[in-house]
Amino acid sequence: MHPLDAAVALKAAGPDRFTGATSPAYSNMVGPFGGITSSLLLNAVLQHPHSAGVPIALTVNFAAPIEDGAIGLTARAARINRSTQHWTVEAAQEGLVVALASAVLAERRATWSASQAQAPQGLPAPHELRRLNTAGFPVWIQRYDMRFIEGGLAGGLDGQEQADSTSCLWVRDDPPRPMDFLSLAALCDSFFPRIFIRRRRMMPVGTVSLTSYFHADEAMLAAQADDYVLGVAHALAFRHGFFDQSAQIWSSSGELMASAHQMVYFRD
Amino acid sequence: MHPLDAAVALKAAGPDRFTGATSPAYSNMVGPFGGITSSLLLNAVLQHPHSAGVPIALTVNFAAPIEDGAIGLTARAARINRSTQHWTVEAAQEGLVVALASAVLAERRATWSASQAQAPQGLPAPHELRRLNTAGFPVWIQRYDMRFIEGGLAGGLDGQEQADSTSCLWVRDDPPRPMDFLSLAALCDSFFPRIFIRRRRMMPVGTVSLTSYFHADEAMLAAQADDYVLGVAHALAFRHGFFDQSAQIWSSSGELMASAHQMVYFRD
Repeated sequence: MHPLDAAVALKAAGPDRFTGATSPAYSNMVGPFGGITSSLLLNAVLQHPHSAGVPIALTVNFAAPIEDGAIGLTARAARINRSTQHWTVEAAQEGLVVALASAVLAERRATWSASQAQAPQGLPAPHELRRLNTAGFPVWIQRYDMRFIEGGLAGGLDGQEQADSTSCLWVRDDPPRPMDFLSLAALCDSFFPRIFIRRRRMMPVGTVSLTSYFHADEAMLAAQADDYVLGVAHALAFRHGFFDQSAQIWSSSGELMASAHQMVYFRD
Repeated sequence: MHPLDAAVALKAAGPDRFTGATSPAYSNMVGPFGGITSSLLLNAVLQHPHSAGVPIALTVNFAAPIEDGAIGLTARAARINRSTQHWTVEAAQEGLVVALASAVLAERRATWSASQAQAPQGLPAPHELRRLNTAGFPVWIQRYDMRFIEGGLAGGLDGQEQADSTSCLWVRDDPPRPMDFLSLAALCDSFFPRIFIRRRRMMPVGTVSLTSYFHADEAMLAAQADDYVLGVAHALAFRHGFFDQSAQIWSSSGELMASAHQMVYFRD
């Protein structure tokens, strides 16, 4: 079993209820990687017997540090419409809420479609780039094969503040895994905190709210399979203890698969 | 009383419970303007006796059409930490959920801060621009004094698809009102659906999920007062029944007050 599938595995524990657990394969500095938590909460919706359609929007609020061990999840359908579903998920440990999610699922239909943004062009291919050396990073970084074109941390954390905080990289699961909504949800949070790039130093940070929009449908996921996707991330503002960051995930053929946004707490 | 304050007014209806109502002053084509609903749900958190800190992130999921009339709201503190709070809000009519929200509140502290994105420069001032003629638009548009620099609908809806869907405008409440988090939350949804700009025609649309990030604190709001803010909105992709759009709201002095993101259903 792929480590991602093991990390988001759920056991049914009654109507609307599931049990999952943190996975050492996706450990962060404290607790699990936020992306795997986001994927775990989404999986509670996808595993629910009333679930129908594909994910359109997912918001996960990280309410408290998650301890290593079991996580109890409650997934409720707040509203089921003909072609859309609105879900809420609550994750708890020792009876206290540690994370909350809302998800919108929908039946996709073929319609007029158009790209507005374009994927960056003229980039080196993944095999032309060196893979990020994950030594010294939290364990979850080993679960991704990251090949930075711009805005990696390869130059070291010298504390020399730089003007930009944009990153651009090819990335895929390690080991490679055919992409689905669970891995895409996790990828949406796989971008380093922008403040590390901007300030070229580490500091305590924690995402408080993460929103992921899924532009991909099943056909686009199947075409992507386990190839590299292109990730681009940037920030708008760092201010009084919080900053935002946004990311786009482009398929290997240049189609937008997901866009993601988050607000992150920081302490300096 | 300003129409916005009337539209988001709540009566306490028991522990965690409030009653509000739709307002004709903010009517949309069907039901109320989504921004006023977002503001109403945020107000249920802000009015709660356990509320502390300022809004950092707000996600509102629009689960079903809202009928004109009373709305019952339930605001629950999912987790109260030392400096952050995680809330959920459920809005119901006739016992069925019509909208859901999650909100993160926090105590802001002075820290290292920096802008990453910059407000557009060299723009004409609001008084140099013509106000959008609101004739023929839904009522809520009359509640905003909109002065478009780019991407308005002034050229008419001729169905001639254009390459871009970006808008840039000065906007403020009408009548003018000192800005607070309630009016800022509403403003976050005040941008026309990007597909109307791109395709230069109307079609059935509906926001399914709206996330607003508040970069402003009380001091920035006080400095802004009732002056015009600069709004910039764009989309990334329109695909198989849904598109995203993102917006930034800049203060009159060029500071980022809010960024907002949404996924919107469309039918063509």
